[in-house]
Amino acid sequence: MLILRYSPASPYARKIRIAADLLGLAEKIEIVAADAADPADSLRRQNPLGKIPTLILEDGSALYDSRVIAEYLDHLAGGGRMIPAVPSARFTALRLQALGDGINDAALLIRYESFSRPEGLRYDEAIALQQGKIDRALGALDAGPPAGDVDIGHIAVACALGYIDLRFAGAWRGKHQCLVAWLEKFARDIPAFEATKA
Amino acid sequence: MLILRYSPASPYARKIRIAADLLGLAEKIEIVAADAADPADSLRRQNPLGKIPTLILEDGSALYDSRVIAEYLDHLAGGGRMIPAVPSARFTALRLQALGDGINDAALLIRYESFSRPEGLRYDEAIALQQGKIDRALGALDAGPPAGDVDIGHIAVACALGYIDLRFAGAWRGKHQCLVAWLEKFARDIPAFEATKA
Repeated sequence: MLILRYSPASPYARKIRIAADLLGLAEKIEIVAADAADPADSLRRQNPLGKIPTLILEDGSALYDSRVIAEYLDHLAGGGRMIPAVPSARFTALRLQALGDGINDAALLIRYESFSRPEGLRYDEAIALQQGKIDRALGALDAGPPAGDVDIGHIAVACALGYIDLRFAGAWRGKHQCLVAWLEKFARDIPAFEATKA
Repeated sequence: MLILRYSPASPYARKIRIAADLLGLAEKIEIVAADAADPADSLRRQNPLGKIPTLILEDGSALYDSRVIAEYLDHLAGGGRMIPAVPSARFTALRLQALGDGINDAALLIRYESFSRPEGLRYDEAIALQQGKIDRALGALDAGPPAGDVDIGHIAVACALGYIDLRFAGAWRGKHQCLVAWLEKFARDIPAFEATKA
Protein backbone atom coordinates (compact mmCIF):
# COMPACT_ATOMS: atom_id res chain seq x y z
CA MET A 1 0.00 0.00 0.00
CA LEU A 2 1.22 3.46 -0.92
CA ILE A 3 0.39 6.43 1.29
CA LEU A 4 -0.34 9.84 -0.17
CA ARG A 5 0.07 12.75 2.21
CA TYR A 6 -2.41 15.34 1.00
CA SER A 7 -4.70 18.15 2.02
CA PRO A 8 -8.19 18.61 0.64
CA ALA A 9 -7.46 22.07 -0.79
CA SER A 10 -4.05 21.31 -2.36
CA PRO A 11 -4.34 21.51 -6.16
CA TYR A 12 -1.10 19.56 -6.54
CA ALA A 13 -2.46 16.72 -4.39
CA ARG A 14 -5.74 16.83 -6.29
CA LYS A 15 -3.81 16.36 -9.53
CA ILE A 16 -2.28 13.18 -8.10
CA ARG A 17 -5.59 11.87 -6.78
CA ILE A 18 -7.25 12.34 -10.18
CA ALA A 19 -4.30 10.78 -12.02
CA ALA A 20 -4.32 7.82 -9.61
CA ASP A 21 -8.01 7.29 -10.27
CA LEU A 22 -7.58 7.41 -14.05
CA LEU A 23 -4.62 5.04 -13.81
CA GLY A 24 -6.66 2.51 -11.81
CA LEU A 25 -4.37 2.92 -8.81
CA ALA A 26 -6.73 4.64 -6.36
CA GLU A 27 -7.31 1.46 -4.36
CA LYS A 28 -3.59 0.95 -3.90
CA ILE A 29 -3.12 4.37 -2.34
CA GLU A 30 -4.21 5.29 1.16
CA ILE A 31 -4.75 9.03 1.43
CA VAL A 32 -3.68 10.50 4.76
CA ALA A 33 -4.16 14.19 5.51
CA ALA A 34 -1.07 16.23 6.37
CA ASP A 35 -0.86 19.64 8.00
CA ALA A 36 2.03 21.44 6.34
CA ALA A 37 1.78 24.23 8.91
CA ASP A 38 2.23 21.90 11.90
CA PRO A 39 5.89 21.31 12.80
CA ALA A 40 4.91 18.11 14.63
CA ASP A 41 3.28 16.55 11.58
CA SER A 42 5.40 13.65 10.26
CA LEU A 43 5.29 15.35 6.82
CA ARG A 44 8.48 17.32 7.53
CA ARG A 45 10.33 14.10 8.36
CA GLN A 46 9.02 12.43 5.22
CA ASN A 47 9.82 15.38 2.97
CA PRO A 48 12.37 17.98 4.15
CA LEU A 49 10.51 20.62 2.15
CA GLY A 50 7.37 19.91 4.15
CA LYS A 51 5.24 19.99 1.02
CA ILE A 52 2.02 18.35 -0.07
CA PRO A 53 1.71 15.96 -1.84
CA THR A 54 4.33 13.47 -0.66
CA LEU A 55 4.03 9.78 -1.54
CA ILE A 56 5.29 7.15 0.91
CA LEU A 57 6.40 3.98 -0.84
CA GLU A 58 6.15 0.47 0.54
CA ASP A 59 9.80 0.51 1.64
CA GLY A 60 9.12 3.62 3.71
CA SER A 61 10.98 6.01 1.39
CA ALA A 62 9.20 9.10 0.13
CA LEU A 63 8.74 10.62 -3.30
CA TYR A 64 8.03 14.28 -4.01
CA ASP A 65 6.99 16.64 -5.52
CA SER A 66 3.73 16.22 -7.44
CA ARG A 67 5.42 15.96 -10.82
CA VAL A 68 7.69 13.18 -9.67
CA ILE A 69 4.77 11.37 -8.03
CA ALA A 70 2.71 11.73 -11.22
CA GLU A 71 5.46 10.16 -13.28
CA TYR A 72 5.97 7.39 -10.73
CA LEU A 73 2.28 6.46 -10.73
CA ASP A 74 2.23 6.54 -14.53
CA HIS A 75 5.24 4.19 -14.47
CA LEU A 76 3.47 1.84 -12.00
CA ALA A 77 0.50 1.73 -14.38
CA GLY A 78 2.71 0.67 -17.27
CA GLY A 79 4.01 4.04 -18.49
CA GLY A 80 2.90 6.38 -21.25
CA ARG A 81 -0.65 6.73 -19.99
CA MET A 82 -1.06 10.11 -18.28
CA ILE A 83 2.40 11.21 -19.48
CA PRO A 84 2.63 10.28 -23.16
CA ALA A 85 5.75 8.38 -24.25
CA VAL A 86 5.88 9.87 -27.77
CA PRO A 87 8.13 12.94 -27.50
CA SER A 88 5.93 15.52 -29.24
CA ALA A 89 2.90 14.62 -27.12
CA ARG A 90 5.06 14.18 -24.02
CA PHE A 91 6.58 17.65 -24.08
CA THR A 92 3.22 19.25 -24.91
CA ALA A 93 1.73 17.50 -21.86
CA LEU A 94 4.65 18.38 -19.60
CA ARG A 95 4.59 22.04 -20.68
CA LEU A 96 0.85 22.14 -20.04
CA GLN A 97 1.43 20.63 -16.60
CA ALA A 98 4.04 23.32 -15.93
CA LEU A 99 1.51 25.97 -16.95
CA GLY A 100 -1.20 24.57 -14.68
CA ASP A 101 1.25 24.16 -11.80
CA GLY A 102 2.50 27.69 -12.47
CA ILE A 103 -1.02 29.09 -12.10
CA ASN A 104 -1.21 27.30 -8.77
CA ASP A 105 2.20 28.60 -7.68
CA ALA A 106 1.05 32.15 -8.40
CA ALA A 107 -2.37 31.65 -6.79
CA LEU A 108 -0.75 30.25 -3.65
CA LEU A 109 1.58 33.24 -3.41
CA ILE A 110 -1.43 35.57 -3.69
CA ARG A 111 -3.16 33.54 -1.01
CA TYR A 112 -0.13 33.83 1.30
CA GLU A 113 0.15 37.54 0.57
CA SER A 114 -3.50 38.40 1.04
CA PHE A 115 -4.62 35.93 3.70
CA SER A 116 -1.75 34.33 5.63
CA ARG A 117 0.00 37.47 6.88
CA PRO A 118 -1.01 40.49 8.98
CA GLU A 119 -3.03 42.95 6.90
CA GLY A 120 -0.54 45.78 7.42
CA LEU A 121 2.28 43.74 5.84
CA ARG A 122 0.59 43.11 2.50
CA TYR A 123 2.30 44.35 -0.63
CA ASP A 124 0.02 45.10 -3.56
CA GLU A 125 2.83 44.93 -6.10
CA ALA A 126 3.63 41.35 -5.12
CA ILE A 127 0.00 40.41 -5.67
CA ALA A 128 -0.12 42.22 -9.03
CA LEU A 129 3.02 40.40 -10.23
CA GLN A 130 1.48 37.01 -9.52
CA GLN A 131 -1.95 38.02 -10.84
CA GLY A 132 -0.28 38.97 -14.12
CA LYS A 133 1.09 35.43 -14.46
CA ILE A 134 -2.36 33.97 -13.84
CA ASP A 135 -4.07 36.37 -16.26
CA ARG A 136 -1.61 35.66 -19.07
CA ALA A 137 -1.81 31.90 -18.49
CA LEU A 138 -5.62 31.99 -18.53
CA GLY A 139 -5.55 34.08 -21.69
CA ALA A 140 -3.31 31.55 -23.42
CA LEU A 141 -5.45 28.64 -22.26
CA ASP A 142 -8.69 30.34 -23.30
CA ALA A 143 -7.24 30.89 -26.77
CA GLY A 144 -6.21 27.23 -26.97
CA PRO A 145 -7.71 24.93 -24.35
CA PRO A 146 -6.11 21.51 -23.76
CA ALA A 147 -6.88 19.19 -26.68
CA GLY A 148 -6.80 15.47 -27.35
CA ASP A 149 -6.85 12.65 -24.80
CA VAL A 150 -6.72 13.56 -21.12
CA ASP A 151 -3.15 13.64 -19.85
CA ILE A 152 -1.32 15.09 -16.85
CA GLY A 153 -1.38 18.53 -18.49
CA HIS A 154 -5.18 18.54 -18.74
CA ILE A 155 -5.44 17.39 -15.13
CA ALA A 156 -3.04 20.09 -13.91
CA VAL A 157 -5.00 22.81 -15.73
CA ALA A 158 -8.33 21.53 -14.35
CA CYS A 159 -6.90 21.51 -10.82
CA ALA A 160 -5.55 25.03 -11.27
CA LEU A 161 -8.97 26.29 -12.42
CA GLY A 162 -10.57 24.46 -9.51
CA TYR A 163 -8.12 26.13 -7.14
CA ILE A 164 -8.80 29.66 -8.36
CA ASP A 165 -12.53 28.87 -8.20
CA LEU A 166 -12.02 27.85 -4.56
CA ARG A 167 -9.86 30.78 -3.51
CA PHE A 168 -11.07 33.59 -5.72
CA ALA A 169 -14.73 32.67 -6.13
CA GLY A 170 -14.61 32.01 -9.86
CA ALA A 171 -13.65 35.57 -10.81
CA TRP A 172 -11.75 34.19 -13.82
CA ARG A 173 -14.87 32.78 -15.46
CA GLY A 174 -16.36 35.96 -16.92
CA LYS A 175 -13.59 36.61 -19.41
CA HIS A 176 -12.67 33.05 -20.36
CA GLN A 177 -15.71 31.40 -21.92
CA CYS A 178 -13.79 28.80 -23.93
CA LEU A 179 -11.89 27.69 -20.88
CA VAL A 180 -15.07 27.54 -18.80
CA ALA A 181 -16.62 25.28 -21.44
CA TRP A 182 -13.51 23.13 -21.50
CA LEU A 183 -13.57 22.73 -17.70
CA GLU A 184 -17.26 21.83 -17.73
CA LYS A 185 -16.58 19.07 -20.25
CA PHE A 186 -13.56 17.87 -18.24
CA ALA A 187 -15.72 17.69 -15.10
CA ARG A 188 -18.37 15.67 -16.95
CA ASP A 189 -15.83 13.28 -18.45
CA ILE A 190 -13.67 12.79 -15.35
CA PRO A 191 -15.75 11.99 -12.26
CA ALA A 192 -12.65 12.13 -10.03
CA PHE A 193 -12.56 15.87 -10.59
CA GLU A 194 -15.82 16.51 -8.73
CA ALA A 195 -15.06 13.71 -6.27
CA THR A 196 -11.88 15.48 -5.15
CA LYS A 197 -13.43 18.96 -4.85
CA ALA A 198 -12.47 20.67 -1.58
CA MET B 1 19.49 26.84 -33.09
CA LEU B 2 17.67 26.77 -29.77
CA ILE B 3 17.40 29.92 -27.67
CA LEU B 4 17.56 29.79 -23.89
CA ARG B 5 16.09 32.80 -22.10
CA TYR B 6 18.06 33.04 -18.88
CA SER B 7 19.42 35.38 -16.27
CA PRO B 8 22.91 35.04 -14.80
CA ALA B 9 21.63 34.62 -11.22
CA SER B 10 18.80 32.15 -11.93
CA PRO B 11 19.65 28.77 -10.38
CA TYR B 12 17.06 27.07 -12.57
CA ALA B 13 18.66 28.50 -15.72
CA ARG B 14 22.10 27.54 -14.41
CA LYS B 15 20.89 23.95 -14.05
CA ILE B 16 19.93 23.94 -17.72
CA ARG B 17 23.20 25.53 -18.84
CA ILE B 18 25.24 22.92 -16.96
CA ALA B 19 23.08 20.06 -18.25
CA ALA B 20 23.39 21.38 -21.82
CA ASP B 21 27.17 21.47 -21.46
CA LEU B 22 27.35 17.92 -20.11
CA LEU B 23 25.02 16.71 -22.87
CA GLY B 24 27.23 18.27 -25.56
CA LEU B 25 24.45 20.63 -26.61
CA ALA B 26 25.90 23.96 -25.49
CA GLU B 27 26.87 24.96 -29.02
CA LYS B 28 23.35 24.37 -30.27
CA ILE B 29 21.85 26.75 -27.72
CA GLU B 30 22.10 30.51 -27.91
CA ILE B 31 21.70 32.03 -24.48
CA VAL B 32 19.78 35.32 -24.46
CA ALA B 33 19.26 37.24 -21.24
CA ALA B 34 15.69 37.95 -20.16
CA ASP B 35 14.43 40.45 -17.61
CA ALA B 36 11.51 38.79 -15.85
CA ALA B 37 10.69 42.09 -14.14
CA ASP B 38 10.29 44.03 -17.41
CA PRO B 39 6.75 43.82 -18.87
CA ALA B 40 8.15 44.77 -22.29
CA ASP B 41 10.59 41.83 -22.40
CA SER B 42 9.45 39.23 -24.95
CA LEU B 43 9.72 36.61 -22.19
CA ARG B 44 6.09 37.13 -21.13
CA ARG B 45 4.91 36.47 -24.69
CA GLN B 46 7.09 33.36 -24.92
CA ASN B 47 6.01 32.01 -21.54
CA PRO B 48 2.76 33.30 -19.99
CA LEU B 49 4.25 32.69 -16.55
CA GLY B 50 7.11 35.06 -17.39
CA LYS B 51 9.65 32.70 -15.86
CA ILE B 52 13.28 31.94 -16.48
CA PRO B 53 14.43 29.64 -18.01
CA THR B 54 12.32 29.36 -21.14
CA LEU B 55 13.61 27.48 -24.20
CA ILE B 56 12.61 28.65 -27.69
CA LEU B 57 12.56 25.79 -30.16
CA GLU B 58 13.40 26.04 -33.85
CA ASP B 59 9.71 26.22 -34.80
CA GLY B 60 9.30 29.25 -32.53
CA SER B 61 7.34 27.42 -29.84
CA ALA B 62 8.54 27.62 -26.26
CA LEU B 63 9.19 25.03 -23.57
CA TYR B 64 9.12 25.65 -19.83
CA ASP B 65 9.81 25.22 -16.97
CA SER B 66 13.36 24.08 -16.15
CA ARG B 67 12.37 20.48 -15.49
CA VAL B 68 10.63 20.18 -18.82
CA ILE B 69 13.59 21.80 -20.57
CA ALA B 70 16.01 19.45 -18.81
CA GLU B 71 14.08 16.42 -19.98
CA TYR B 72 13.82 17.82 -23.51
CA LEU B 73 17.56 18.39 -23.76
CA ASP B 74 18.22 14.92 -22.37
CA HIS B 75 15.88 13.56 -25.05
CA LEU B 76 17.71 15.52 -27.77
CA ALA B 77 20.97 13.99 -26.57
CA GLY B 78 19.59 10.48 -26.89
CA GLY B 79 17.77 10.09 -23.58
CA GLY B 80 18.72 8.50 -20.28
CA ARG B 81 21.83 10.60 -19.79
CA MET B 82 21.15 13.32 -17.21
CA ILE B 83 17.79 11.76 -16.35
CA PRO B 84 18.38 8.01 -15.97
CA ALA B 85 16.02 5.70 -17.86
CA VAL B 86 16.13 2.88 -15.28
CA PRO B 87 13.20 3.55 -12.92
CA SER B 88 15.01 3.23 -9.56
CA ALA B 89 17.77 5.62 -10.64
CA ARG B 90 15.30 7.86 -12.47
CA PHE B 91 13.04 8.50 -9.50
CA THR B 92 16.01 9.01 -7.18
CA ALA B 93 17.36 11.63 -9.61
CA LEU B 94 13.97 13.31 -10.07
CA ARG B 95 13.37 13.46 -6.31
CA LEU B 96 16.82 14.95 -5.82
CA GLN B 97 16.06 17.52 -8.50
CA ALA B 98 12.80 18.36 -6.68
CA LEU B 99 14.79 18.81 -3.46
CA GLY B 100 17.33 21.11 -5.11
CA ASP B 101 14.61 23.08 -6.89
CA GLY B 102 12.70 23.24 -3.60
CA ILE B 103 15.69 24.84 -1.86
CA ASN B 104 15.72 27.41 -4.64
CA ASP B 105 11.98 28.02 -4.39
CA ALA B 106 12.38 28.71 -0.66
CA ALA B 107 15.50 30.84 -1.12
CA LEU B 108 13.76 32.94 -3.77
CA LEU B 109 10.78 33.53 -1.48
CA ILE B 110 13.17 34.68 1.26
CA ARG B 111 14.85 36.93 -1.27
CA TYR B 112 11.51 38.46 -2.29
CA GLU B 113 10.50 38.84 1.34
CA SER B 114 13.72 40.40 2.58
CA PHE B 115 14.91 42.34 -0.44
CA SER B 116 12.22 42.96 -3.07
CA ARG B 117 9.60 44.68 -0.91
CA PRO B 118 9.54 47.76 1.32
CA GLU B 119 11.22 47.06 4.65
CA GLY B 120 8.11 47.86 6.66
CA LEU B 121 6.14 45.10 4.88
CA ARG B 122 8.46 42.23 5.74
CA TYR B 123 7.05 39.33 7.70
CA ASP B 124 9.53 37.38 9.77
CA GLU B 125 7.29 34.33 10.05
CA ALA B 126 7.20 33.96 6.26
CA ILE B 127 11.01 33.99 6.20
CA ALA B 128 11.24 31.48 9.05
CA LEU B 129 8.86 29.09 7.28
CA GLN B 130 11.01 29.07 4.14
CA GLN B 131 14.27 28.95 6.09
CA GLY B 132 13.00 25.82 7.84
CA LYS B 133 12.57 24.12 4.47
CA ILE B 134 16.11 25.04 3.47
CA ASP B 135 17.58 23.94 6.80
CA ARG B 136 15.87 20.55 6.72
CA ALA B 137 16.84 19.99 3.09
CA LEU B 138 20.47 20.88 3.81
CA GLY B 139 20.46 18.57 6.83
CA ALA B 140 19.16 15.69 4.72
CA LEU B 141 21.71 16.37 1.98
CA ASP B 142 24.58 16.68 4.44
CA ALA B 143 23.65 13.30 5.93
CA GLY B 144 23.54 11.76 2.45
CA PRO B 145 25.09 13.82 -0.35
CA PRO B 146 24.25 12.94 -3.96
CA ALA B 147 26.01 9.70 -4.96
CA GLY B 148 26.92 7.94 -8.19
CA ASP B 149 27.20 9.44 -11.65
CA VAL B 150 26.25 13.08 -12.12
CA ASP B 151 22.60 13.45 -13.08
CA ILE B 152 20.01 16.23 -13.08
CA GLY B 153 19.54 15.79 -9.33
CA HIS B 154 23.23 16.45 -8.62
CA ILE B 155 23.14 19.49 -10.89
CA ALA B 156 20.01 20.87 -9.20
CA VAL B 157 21.57 20.50 -5.74
CA ALA B 158 24.82 22.15 -6.85
CA CYS B 159 22.88 25.06 -8.34
CA ALA B 160 20.85 25.43 -5.14
CA LEU B 161 24.01 25.54 -3.03
CA GLY B 162 25.49 28.04 -5.47
CA TYR B 163 22.37 30.16 -5.15
CA ILE B 164 22.40 30.28 -1.35
CA ASP B 165 26.13 31.05 -1.53
CA LEU B 166 25.28 33.98 -3.83
CA ARG B 167 22.34 35.33 -1.85
CA PHE B 168 23.20 34.46 1.73
CA ALA B 169 27.00 34.64 1.63
CA GLY B 170 27.66 30.97 2.30
CA ALA B 171 26.07 30.96 5.76
CA TRP B 172 25.07 27.31 5.21
CA ARG B 173 28.66 26.10 4.99
CA GLY B 174 29.58 26.06 8.67
CA LYS B 175 27.19 23.33 9.69
CA HIS B 176 27.30 21.14 6.56
CA GLN B 177 30.84 19.91 6.09
CA CYS B 178 29.94 16.80 4.09
CA LEU B 179 27.88 18.83 1.68
CA VAL B 180 30.63 21.45 1.34
CA ALA B 181 33.08 18.68 0.43
CA TRP B 182 30.59 17.25 -2.05
CA LEU B 183 30.12 20.65 -3.72
CA GLU B 184 33.88 21.20 -3.94
CA LYS B 185 34.30 17.87 -5.72
CA PHE B 186 31.35 18.65 -8.02
CA ALA B 187 32.93 22.00 -8.92
CA ARG B 188 36.26 20.29 -9.70
CA ASP B 189 34.61 17.58 -11.81
CA ILE B 190 32.13 19.78 -13.69
CA PRO B 191 33.82 22.87 -15.18
CA ALA B 192 30.45 24.25 -16.33
CA PHE B 193 29.59 24.87 -12.70
CA GLU B 194 32.25 27.53 -12.22
CA ALA B 195 31.78 28.77 -15.78
CA THR B 196 28.13 29.61 -15.05
CA LYS B 197 28.74 31.30 -11.70
CA ALA B 198 26.89 34.63 -11.39
